[in-house]
Amino acid sequence: MLQYENVAWYEDGKVRILDRRIYPTEVKFVECTTHEEVAQAIADMVTQSAGPYTAAGMGMALAGYECRNMNEADQRKYLEKAAHTLSNARPTTAKRMELVTSGALGYAYKAMDEGKDIAEAMFQSTIDSLNRRYSTMEIVGENLASLFPKKGTIMTQCFGETIVGMMLRAAKKFEKDIKLFVPETRPYFQGARLTASVAQGQGFDTTVITDNMPAFVMSTNKIDLFTSAADAICMDGYVVNKVGTYQIAIAAKYHGVPYFVSGIPDRVHDTIDTVTIEYRDPKLVLEARGIKNTLEGVKGYYPSFDITPPHLVSGVVTDKGIFVPYDLEKYFESENEGFYSVTI
Amino acid sequence: MLQYENVAWYEDGKVRILDRRIYPTEVKFVECTTHEEVAQAIADMVTQSAGPYTAAGMGMALAGYECRNMNEADQRKYLEKAAHTLSNARPTTAKRMELVTSGALGYAYKAMDEGKDIAEAMFQSTIDSLNRRYSTMEIVGENLASLFPKKGTIMTQCFGETIVGMMLRAAKKFEKDIKLFVPETRPYFQGARLTASVAQGQGFDTTVITDNMPAFVMSTNKIDLFTSAADAICMDGYVVNKVGTYQIAIAAKYHGVPYFVSGIPDRVHDTIDTVTIEYRDPKLVLEARGIKNTLEGVKGYYPSFDITPPHLVSGVVTDKGIFVPYDLEKYFESENEGFYSVTI
Repeated sequence: MLQYENVAWYEDGKVRILDRRIYPTEVKFVECTTHEEVAQAIADMVTQSAGPYTAAGMGMALAGYECRNMNEADQRKYLEKAAHTLSNARPTTAKRMELVTSGALGYAYKAMDEGKDIAEAMFQSTIDSLNRRYSTMEIVGENLASLFPKKGTIMTQCFGETIVGMMLRAAKKFEKDIKLFVPETRPYFQGARLTASVAQGQGFDTTVITDNMPAFVMSTNKIDLFTSAADAICMDGYVVNKVGTYQIAIAAKYHGVPYFVSGIPDRVHDTIDTVTIEYRDPKLVLEARGIKNTLEGVKGYYPSFDITPPHLVSGVVTDKGIFVPYDLEKYFESENEGFYSVTI
Repeated sequence: MLQYENVAWYEDGKVRILDRRIYPTEVKFVECTTHEEVAQAIADMVTQSAGPYTAAGMGMALAGYECRNMNEADQRKYLEKAAHTLSNARPTTAKRMELVTSGALGYAYKAMDEGKDIAEAMFQSTIDSLNRRYSTMEIVGENLASLFPKKGTIMTQCFGETIVGMMLRAAKKFEKDIKLFVPETRPYFQGARLTASVAQGQGFDTTVITDNMPAFVMSTNKIDLFTSAADAICMDGYVVNKVGTYQIAIAAKYHGVPYFVSGIPDRVHDTIDTVTIEYRDPKLVLEARGIKNTLEGVKGYYPSFDITPPHLVSGVVTDKGIFVPYDLEKYFESENEGFYSVTI
């Protein structure tokens, strides 16, 4: 698993972000000296999965540094504007991002009242929430791994970052003998580059397939379950995740393979109707690893996420157990409901 | 459409094959001076779709040139061995290939009896069968285009070469206002490189998507039909085609989009059980355009084709009309049953 120092890190007026567009075959960092550059890096998908939340928190610390010499009223205005900019770097996750940036703002205002350094306070806010998230995700990973057979094969989608790592760690702890089929996840190949590398790094038998193969693999190999994280789990049970999830979920239903989504239900989305699906630059689907595949004049179409309806979801795996997608209110009826909700 | 001089061509003891692994962004030819090199080029996917059948025919002409100074008995042995080598360059289409190479052998033996040039005879055999195929495919294309709405959107898969071109020409003739969504077809990107370029070249509004998007596109855009060619249409209605066809057919069924496969039923395959699915070098799915996506130790899995069962097929579009996949014997009950059966 990536240590969070390597995801995004604030230090001395700079935020350093691991460039996941090329990781792991190359390890490079993008250095940002303003919070706007951090927002741009998020928009440009320098970091992905849960990375943008960490980057946004570190970006808030950087904004605190940028306004260090302003008076308190101007600082508040500056930080609120920064929070807005960072939250809206990508539309689909804006509401989740606001939880991060507003959390950081809270720490900043408290620091102002106490005469402490606001950049340092927001850095600490980010670290605290990461630690809370890791604790939560550790339990989610255990609940997910508890669904695995003693020996079997699972299929993943894209890069669930923390959850993938925690899930595999739990699988080892429970002595589950698991192989993985990992669709490559075009156009950025996060599955091939990131999910597969994490699984391989943790010692699992890992096989990458192209995105046109999941259905055929389900028909020729026994797949015990399909699992993904989510960019949003709406309260009505609709799941928003990296494009391709929906198609694999349909194939899974067709083959009788259960689909478990992991994460915490998003109270900010009562229904799917409040989610904005991000459409990215279509030229990205017309090329691969920077090489153009088509002639001039051919168009591209690039929805970054898709929507899986609850009737294709076998269960929502949370830190409080496994819920049916039609009954997510129950998650908030039990204790500990203050848990940090960014849980990719 | 590609003129067949540009697919594969025999002349003066050489076969020149268009390298479709890089076409159309680069136009290069692979030159073969032995029929074994032609078989290797087919195995290496220098040419694809219907290209291998043309290449195999031209390879037989080359084999005729190679054995020009042998006695007749040795020539027969040499040509039969060459026919076997060329037919089995790729396992999934071996039985269809035998139709091409045995056709060429027939021309060669006739030429021997008549004291004519055998290389020239087999070259002519290939041209004749191409011409027959083009005539047949023109009718298949018209029957397929007759299923299109007056104005609408269709989704394709991979590269149906002649059929795609004929289908689009017929769509124009029938004044159908058609847009295309074209999945890119990893790992070789034939959809993006070839299908999309053909459609764009014929003036159609053409949009490429990655292979994880067809289902979501069906849910967000009205898709009127999904269509593909086939590497085999077995007599029991099972369709063998480029990997991904099965997955899109499942998504089409889920969304109520009809799937029409075009081509001629394969009498050489009474049932799907006689088809061997080719598995190619797994490292090809671990890279894109020659750039590696994963770390060492991660495995790949590369079935070149998949199998779509008849209950996902809305109709088999042939030169004699549209048949239900459970009733393909009927195709051979009508006239003209001697038609050349290589019909991608």
